Amino acid sequence: MSEQMQHIVLASRPDGAPVAENFRLEQVAMPTPADGEVLVKVHYMSLDPYMRGRMDDAKSYAAPVPVGGPMEGGAVGQVIASKSSAFEPGDFAFGMFGWASHGVLPANQLQKLDPKMGPITAALGVMGMPGFTGWHGLNAYGRPKAGETLVVAAATGPVGSMVGQLAKHAGLRVVGIAGGAEKCALAVETFGFDACLDHRAYDTARDLRVALKDACPDGIDIYFENVGGKVLEAIMPLMNPFGRIPICGMISWYNAGGLGADATDGVMPAPAIWRNILVKYLSVNGFIISNHFDRYPEFLKEVGPMVAKGEVRFLEDIAEGLENAPAAFMSMLTGGNTGKQIVKLV
Amino acid sequence: MSEQMQHIVLASRPDGAPVAENFRLEQVAMPTPADGEVLVKVHYMSLDPYMRGRMDDAKSYAAPVPVGGPMEGGAVGQVIASKSSAFEPGDFAFGMFGWASHGVLPANQLQKLDPKMGPITAALGVMGMPGFTGWHGLNAYGRPKAGETLVVAAATGPVGSMVGQLAKHAGLRVVGIAGGAEKCALAVETFGFDACLDHRAYDTARDLRVALKDACPDGIDIYFENVGGKVLEAIMPLMNPFGRIPICGMISWYNAGGLGADATDGVMPAPAIWRNILVKYLSVNGFIISNHFDRYPEFLKEVGPMVAKGEVRFLEDIAEGLENAPAAFMSMLTGGNTGKQIVKLV
Repeated sequence: MSEQMQHIVLASRPDGAPVAENFRLEQVAMPTPADGEVLVKVHYMSLDPYMRGRMDDAKSYAAPVPVGGPMEGGAVGQVIASKSSAFEPGDFAFGMFGWASHGVLPANQLQKLDPKMGPITAALGVMGMPGFTGWHGLNAYGRPKAGETLVVAAATGPVGSMVGQLAKHAGLRVVGIAGGAEKCALAVETFGFDACLDHRAYDTARDLRVALKDACPDGIDIYFENVGGKVLEAIMPLMNPFGRIPICGMISWYNAGGLGADATDGVMPAPAIWRNILVKYLSVNGFIISNHFDRYPEFLKEVGPMVAKGEVRFLEDIAEGLENAPAAFMSMLTGGNTGKQIVKLV
Repeated sequence: MSEQMQHIVLASRPDGAPVAENFRLEQVAMPTPADGEVLVKVHYMSLDPYMRGRMDDAKSYAAPVPVGGPMEGGAVGQVIASKSSAFEPGDFAFGMFGWASHGVLPANQLQKLDPKMGPITAALGVMGMPGFTGWHGLNAYGRPKAGETLVVAAATGPVGSMVGQLAKHAGLRVVGIAGGAEKCALAVETFGFDACLDHRAYDTARDLRVALKDACPDGIDIYFENVGGKVLEAIMPLMNPFGRIPICGMISWYNAGGLGADATDGVMPAPAIWRNILVKYLSVNGFIISNHFDRYPEFLKEVGPMVAKGEVRFLEDIAEGLENAPAAFMSMLTGGNTGKQIVKLV
């Protein structure tokens, strides 16, 4: 019998929040690299909110994962066989290996990592897709100016903590929103936020709005949107004229499938959204970081040294074992993690 | 008894669509210009959708008209007395005289008009605030590129017709939406739209969407938003990746007061709006033209010659008599006009 590897496939599409039965761990034959390809043994894989979208068959910017197909995602690991002159066994690399113990990719789809520059897990979070998302969204669409006020939810997550720290660095007042007193304390103490509100402490958007008004005495100039729902509804009326809203996600609505009328969390009707955009001259920009990889070197150059100097800090939440990836993923979707969610495989 | 003038005041705030009782014609004393001021006899006054917003006391970018206060708006007329060296009797000027037969304004708040350059009514429409709104919104936020597709509603109105003609000039496919077959024929024949759909011919957003899909085989890159409601709901799913939506108005929702949950026309929930912005990387920008008057000279320089050469055409709908302004205004809010709505006073 040939050598085996493991991966997790989408067993069935979720109806609302994913459950364990939507995933299945499988043994498959170990792939062999063809010319120009590299075989990597995964050490750490990434879990990200966008993966929830791929589980639905709603039309989106990326094709859904087919039922029975392996779950997609980024991972870092070590080369164990190479048919490319660009890599040799022992090298570390980042690539889209999915939820899997091993993977083969063309060398030009891999990013070589230097473990002397820091933990290789950073390529999944602070120096990877989430950190880059925060940096690009803040700069390209948030257009921060010293003295302004920024609000970001999921404040201790890899996107929110990047946005908050960069905005503080640029001289803004930064207010976070997070789930639970512990995360709020982390946002302030570890990431330097001026304030952080626990959204679980407020039953309604109205209550959250009252607290936000206190925390943002000069209104809100930038709302970096990654959650939607109650937070969005609380914030919209507090936006200042000429405010900016970069949208990179809306995790509170992800389990609502196609996000139609059954998305009941966040009841602000479309006319109220539209009216706020009009009467306050807001600039609202949706973006997906994969359209902007041309700016990744610029991000690395600017933020890399900040991370090295400790000006940008990061938190990781590491689960153990591929078989535990579904549970860690489901927990992350309801805020069970603290910091970038990673699964350690070896 | 001193000389008298007439104006129309807001008698009461409307509950939904305005009715005649919300307005009152009053005789008041003719004002006298102080030093630096000018007295103008109004020849034509403008009626614009934004005035509906001023009748409510909802918080907006401009203060509401107080109950008992004169209705606001732009008008053109002739100077009959001047205490400014900048104007003499007989000069023509544009100013914010409101719904009134006469008005006094400081000379620096007036724009002198040369009647030899064309009809003075142009200062209320094609060369005034509506035309400037279309030009600025299209260029600053629509960012048109040859070969793209643009959709604009109220296609024969002063904003929509400007947007459509400029976009055609820039090499775009231009599809209008208007109320009634007659207006649709005008959009195509007079303004050169590639197609125009009669929104009254479609009962639901879904039906309108099917027709739009036919009219826009390559999808929609720019939706110039001035109506909201059913049209917005029809269009959102047809927007192309990287599409742009400048928002200058939402007339279909104006009679819904604060535009809360009782705005039932357009049932697309907020999550669906947000999701479209995210997954198609849309850029949505609200704007109010009064924030951009610094670009007015640029607009005049660029579009003035196009109007003179007939490359940009315009339609006016002229009611007669100040006392008929409320009826003309109420009719305009439901699309009863064809072209820029003006009231002739003398």
